[in-house]
Amino acid sequence: MAKKLTTRDEDYSQWYNEIIQSADLAESSGVRGCMVIKPYGYAIWEKMQAELDRMFKETGHENAYFPLFIPKSYLSKEAAHVEGFAKECAVVTHYRLKSSEDGKGVMVDPTAKLEEELIVRPTSETIIWDTYRKWIQSYRDLPILVNQWANVVRWEMRTRLFLRTAEFLWQEGHTAHATKEEAISETEQMINIYADFAQNFMAMPVIKGLKSKNERFAGAEETYCIEALMQDGKALQAGTSHFLGQNFAKAFDVRFTTKKGKQEYVWATSWGVSTRLMGALVMMHSDDNGLVLPPKLAPYQVVIVPIFKTEEDLQKISKLVYKIKSILESKNISVKYDNRDTHKPGWKFAEHELKGVPIRLALGLRDLENDTVEIARRDTLEKETCNILNVENKILNLLEEIQNNLFNKALTFRNKKTYKANSKDEFVKLIEQGGFVYAHWDGTNETEQLIKQETKATIRCIPLDAKEEKGVCLFSGAPSDKRVLFAKNY
Amino acid sequence: MAKKLTTRDEDYSQWYNEIIQSADLAESSGVRGCMVIKPYGYAIWEKMQAELDRMFKETGHENAYFPLFIPKSYLSKEAAHVEGFAKECAVVTHYRLKSSEDGKGVMVDPTAKLEEELIVRPTSETIIWDTYRKWIQSYRDLPILVNQWANVVRWEMRTRLFLRTAEFLWQEGHTAHATKEEAISETEQMINIYADFAQNFMAMPVIKGLKSKNERFAGAEETYCIEALMQDGKALQAGTSHFLGQNFAKAFDVRFTTKKGKQEYVWATSWGVSTRLMGALVMMHSDDNGLVLPPKLAPYQVVIVPIFKTEEDLQKISKLVYKIKSILESKNISVKYDNRDTHKPGWKFAEHELKGVPIRLALGLRDLENDTVEIARRDTLEKETCNILNVENKILNLLEEIQNNLFNKALTFRNKKTYKANSKDEFVKLIEQGGFVYAHWDGTNETEQLIKQETKATIRCIPLDAKEEKGVCLFSGAPSDKRVLFAKNY
Repeated sequence: MAKKLTTRDEDYSQWYNEIIQSADLAESSGVRGCMVIKPYGYAIWEKMQAELDRMFKETGHENAYFPLFIPKSYLSKEAAHVEGFAKECAVVTHYRLKSSEDGKGVMVDPTAKLEEELIVRPTSETIIWDTYRKWIQSYRDLPILVNQWANVVRWEMRTRLFLRTAEFLWQEGHTAHATKEEAISETEQMINIYADFAQNFMAMPVIKGLKSKNERFAGAEETYCIEALMQDGKALQAGTSHFLGQNFAKAFDVRFTTKKGKQEYVWATSWGVSTRLMGALVMMHSDDNGLVLPPKLAPYQVVIVPIFKTEEDLQKISKLVYKIKSILESKNISVKYDNRDTHKPGWKFAEHELKGVPIRLALGLRDLENDTVEIARRDTLEKETCNILNVENKILNLLEEIQNNLFNKALTFRNKKTYKANSKDEFVKLIEQGGFVYAHWDGTNETEQLIKQETKATIRCIPLDAKEEKGVCLFSGAPSDKRVLFAKNY
Repeated sequence: MAKKLTTRDEDYSQWYNEIIQSADLAESSGVRGCMVIKPYGYAIWEKMQAELDRMFKETGHENAYFPLFIPKSYLSKEAAHVEGFAKECAVVTHYRLKSSEDGKGVMVDPTAKLEEELIVRPTSETIIWDTYRKWIQSYRDLPILVNQWANVVRWEMRTRLFLRTAEFLWQEGHTAHATKEEAISETEQMINIYADFAQNFMAMPVIKGLKSKNERFAGAEETYCIEALMQDGKALQAGTSHFLGQNFAKAFDVRFTTKKGKQEYVWATSWGVSTRLMGALVMMHSDDNGLVLPPKLAPYQVVIVPIFKTEEDLQKISKLVYKIKSILESKNISVKYDNRDTHKPGWKFAEHELKGVPIRLALGLRDLENDTVEIARRDTLEKETCNILNVENKILNLLEEIQNNLFNKALTFRNKKTYKANSKDEFVKLIEQGGFVYAHWDGTNETEQLIKQETKATIRCIPLDAKEEKGVCLFSGAPSDKRVLFAKNY
């Protein structure tokens, strides 16, 4: 615990890795690119899952489960989709091992070769639309509003814990609709739910927008996204919602009979967020002392550390602690009592600071005499001594204040790092510095590629709230009627 | 909805398949041996998960997540384990596809061959103990009480929905302890939790026992199990908890420093239940009219069907229904209001009966006049008319009564089908009839195999509550000091 973290200024990327490790969130495994999510990290992910799952169900979605494997031929059915996903994926070719000839290990049994190879799902549109063909005959069977919590695999060459791993956990919603309008409205509803979750639970301000054609999901007609700005000035895409048109319905021949008796192809959406959100959460709020968690996603919101010398002191303190703990828990505040006798209070303080616990209470004998307790908040590192009688309201207010403070701090940071560029030179300089840069663009793929080559900036999105504004593309000089959002990105 | 199910007497196996299908629980997918769990089936699994997860956490366990893939060499490290699991498994050999030569599809890129093949986890002991080596140095790091909710793959040749599928969902607990006693006590605690869950939530009576050496988990020193009797007289293993000794610690070199400074190998347990429980639940209580669900695991416990001719009638009825619904929901009763205008009441009755909804309320105009409501219970198919003022207490009591009735009915059935065999002839006859048969056995693997060959019966378990009783093995004549439990099984 004594070792200091690398600071953000020294090496942002190293700082990130050290927080993941020292806050016990995740670690690399013996399998290339696959991570182990440790209990403390997984507890945060479970909080995220619970809130998102509630939001999905409140808007009429149900969960289901589809196969891990996708027959190779399914991937080829939607032309754009196969381009995007067939390339880097895990391929199952055999279904048996046998003892190796030296008798010391096992080897693939060459006689157990699959007739058709199976792909470990990189995303499930194909297997799901193959299933929906059986579920959908009539308009009465629509809409289908289904979500799946699952693991997926994309064979990434350069991986980073949470941000880019070969296997990751996510949810993928897949809905089927009778009309284009209904499908678009579903796509928009889901990006709004993601934005709501990001802002109100993760305390992470996001910009909602559309992807350029070039950055769209493989097989989508339109991709909506939410984009957040990290502390190093790079953007992170935190969630996407795709309007898939009738592409998958046509590829898998999913038609329905309308009320008027006509046969039509079904309209589709898909939308997802992943354990990448864990990476975003870490980078959004943490500081040079370690992880900082918004109270709404903290595995425990309050930790209580007793300050004692003898076993007898501990017993006296514990009596009061259990009383406080049960009062707080009755208000739905999660509390951990860290009464380990294997570590000193200072060591515990450092550990809980590294782990981003929003509020720390410390209680010693003198506090018992004076009816006081020391309260420390993680976000500002401020400490104060408070009367024990007020502790419940004090903490309820403080949790709300911390949640709001983290959001406001992040928003202030983003505003400070958001620019408008009006010349190519200015654009290049601002992108180099880091941050969100609004600039005119001529709408062509060629210019987008050129900008990426020259500056490493990508179009993060065409913001939904972009205002009409006449201008010229900074790189081609061609006319443009609104600014789009550029940044370097994760 | 009109089509009658095949009855249990006609064809038990066909009856099971038809219930899975007509109650919308699951279906086969385009991938051999892999199932799609449909929303209604998945909702039951989510209820199971929620209760089990609560029970695990109340006993100090935390969730985590480990990689889907296991390097081939890991499997070989524990000698018994590799025998049991390396044989039928999905093997990933490549990490890329490329456009096929005819340009019409994709093919495996031969240049993207993995140096070491990866196995899709059939169970996670090896990858987890490879990780625990990094987590455990000292007695202070113990115990580790971790559970994982995950998908696993075992390449089964003959598959049946829920009961035996290539991919299935499960939880696997993996704990690490400083002493043998503590590990055994954990193993026993978990089999007790499984039995508690089976009996109190699934309404499924189970027998707790130990597996014979022959039926133990590959790599375990002792396997505890719970066994239930299905309506066709076959046994189903519903959960297992393994005491793994120091086998995996030795295979993966996981040692810790004791309080006295000595180096010792860590003691291990693992335990799991899977979506197989869904198959058990279906077979346990369902009847020739369809699925029957215990109220504690039903996606909705009460369905309300309005009986109406005109839109105006429906509005009047709905006003009262929403009142009843909100009263019931305030008591944590889950309620679905089936106000579809696309189907007639009789059709809806049949559908909810097929889907096993514990209680159905029907409300028409005459009920509004008389302040009554018709209540039908799924388990006994009894109907009665009840005063609307009593509906809340009536339903609370009825839900409890149905839960208990299902358990008692299952227990009565099991008792009736449980026998003691005192001669080989009697044994053969009883096993042939179906049911649990208690018989003396000489404790040898040879006799166990012989019995299986001659009668298809296996030792389900050596019951934990088996009484000392002198006898002789029915097949070998050798002495035996207690009866063990035999049955044909799933």
